[in-house]
Parts: sequence; structure tokens; C-alpha cells
Amino acid sequence: MKIILASKSPRRHELIKALEMEWSLSSFDVEETYDPSLKTDEIVKYLALKKAEAYPKALGNDEVLLTADTIVCINNLVLNKPKNEQEAFNMLKLLCGNTHSVYTGVCLKSNNKKKVFAERTEVTCKLLNDQEIRHYISSYQPFDKAGSYGIQDWFGYTAVEKINGCYYNVMGLPVSRIYDELKAF
Amino acid sequence: MKIILASKSPRRHELIKALEMEWSLSSFDVEETYDPSLKTDEIVKYLALKKAEAYPKALGNDEVLLTADTIVCINNLVLNKPKNEQEAFNMLKLLCGNTHSVYTGVCLKSNNKKKVFAERTEVTCKLLNDQEIRHYISSYQPFDKAGSYGIQDWFGYTAVEKINGCYYNVMGLPVSRIYDELKAF
Repeated sequence: MKIILASKSPRRHELIKALEMEWSLSSFDVEETYDPSLKTDEIVKYLALKKAEAYPKALGNDEVLLTADTIVCINNLVLNKPKNEQEAFNMLKLLCGNTHSVYTGVCLKSNNKKKVFAERTEVTCKLLNDQEIRHYISSYQPFDKAGSYGIQDWFGYTAVEKINGCYYNVMGLPVSRIYDELKAF
Repeated sequence: MKIILASKSPRRHELIKALEMEWSLSSFDVEETYDPSLKTDEIVKYLALKKAEAYPKALGNDEVLLTADTIVCINNLVLNKPKNEQEAFNMLKLLCGNTHSVYTGVCLKSNNKKKVFAERTEVTCKLLNDQEIRHYISSYQPFDKAGSYGIQDWFGYTAVEKINGCYYNVMGLPVSRIYDELKAF
């Protein structure tokens, strides 16, 4: 079984590498739009499936395409990637001192089968002051990250006091679940 | 404030580096024995303090010594570092399919002050088969790790389905708590 990971995220590349399976990378653009009436876990499943269906090549018989999407939710508000410094600041102000949810949706697709699932992890952040938040944004430039932070960088080390669920799901792939789903695929 | 991290663990070095504070390394041997009547969180606090008190040099006025100890507990049984392959196998068999606790005790010590605390994280592992467990032990040689596994390697990626608490505490330092304690020190 050869995994084709269709994602530009360096964090996902790192995670899939650690599973010790044969894999390769493919990247193409998909517009990440969705029906706003969808529930949060449905959004990430919808976007993972949309990415899989947009895959521009034919799959070999031993190939499994893996696509994924991650969003951050707080009080029914969906946080995507921040467009600029102010948006990143607003998102982090919202997350600090609160518990939010991170959802990652995954689609596994071969020529015969398809499996779509989502995992949720709760993340509790403590308060950082405005100076600390601005330091984080200017030093780490979290503009490619849903919710404006990486759990594996300075923000995760200092502000994340507790998680409930899969840590790697917050990084962008629920690897333990993916390992099981691939064994059963 | 200059942190002196007295630990041989490469994972702790990595974690303290990410806090962006000035730090240096010191390493010396301490016998990790304790009164077996101690409770689990008392064991790690006792050992962190014991390491701090065994520090062989004088501290400068701007220096803070950081020592730590991590243990894995399941059903009131304390798992330390495995002595050999069989002991590692027995520990991982015990952990798989169950939830266990990881305790890290930390001591911060300057010339005027001392603070000792412990953090607990719950880790839920799913079942791996014997072949997978043996593969992990022979490939990753987890003999320097309490409980015979690293949450940041293949075992953590495939077997750990959920944690409740601080992820970095499982790696050996509750960095978010340490960041706060150092600010208040």
C-alpha cells in the first residue's frame, strides 16, 4: 500500500513520515469553501472529501490518496488561517483563557474504496498578555495555521496548558486513527 | 534569569530550548531511590528535590536550577526505565488497551528560593499486537524512557489515542506550568 499525501502542510508531511509507511507527496489547489450551514465536523469531512475528489491524477491499484482539513472552533465560530497580523491577534485573544476544539477531517481513497472521518481534540489555553501574543505573531508568523497557532511551537509550549484528545490531531493529522483505518482499509 | 537544566534527557533539552530563555546544561548522577510508601506525585517531587540538593556547584545570583523526574503509573504500579527487552515488552503490554498516568515533578531553586511541584497527564493507549510491540522495542530501543515509550516517536503516533493534560509533561517537562512558575519566581 502506497500513501499519496495531498497536502502542502510541512507538519502533515512530518506526521505521515513517522508512521513508517511508503508514501509520496502531491500538491494541488482546492478552494476551501463550504456551505456555512454545515456543522463543524461536517465541514472538515466535506473539505477532505472535496480535496480527494479534486485530485487530478489516476490512482494506481496499490495507491491510497490521503487528504485532510483542519479547523479551530470556539463558541460556534470557525477560525481558519488568519489573513494578517490583526486577525491573528484577534484569534489568539479569543483562544487565550478559554477551551476550544480542533477538528481534523480525513479522506482515504483508493480505486475501490473511500473512507471519510473526523477527530476532535479539546485544547485549553491560559491567558497570555498582549505583549506575549504580539511577540508570538511577529516571531512565528502563524499565517499558515488555522486558529493562528502551532501546538508544537512557542505558543503550544507556553499557552496550552491541557489537551483532551489526540495531540497530533491538533498538528493536522489524527495519526493513531489513520494507522487503524489504513490497517482496516 | 539564567536557567541551569540538570538533566541528561535529550527531550528535556529540546523542551527547555523552546521556551526561549537563557539556559545551560549541567549533568551529574543521583541515585533515583525513594521511600516506597510515598504517593506517586510525592515520588516525583521528592526525586526532583533530591536532584536539586545534590547539585554539586554554587549557584550564581541570577541562576535558577531546574531539576525534574518523570514516572509512569498504572493501577498503583510505578514503571521506571526498563532494564531489558523483556521488561520493556511487559510494560508495553500493560499500557496497551489501558489508561495510565504520567507524573513529572519539577524543582526550581535559586540562592533564595525553592519551588517544587508536580503535574499529571492521563494517557490512553489502544491495543497493539505482540509483533507491533516487538517491532517498536527493537527499532526504537526505549530503554532510557520511563514506561518504555516516547510519546513523540512511533509508539506515540500509533498507540496513543488520547491524552488528558499537558502533552509536554509526558515528554518530561510541563513547560507551560514551568513558564508560569518562572515568571512568578
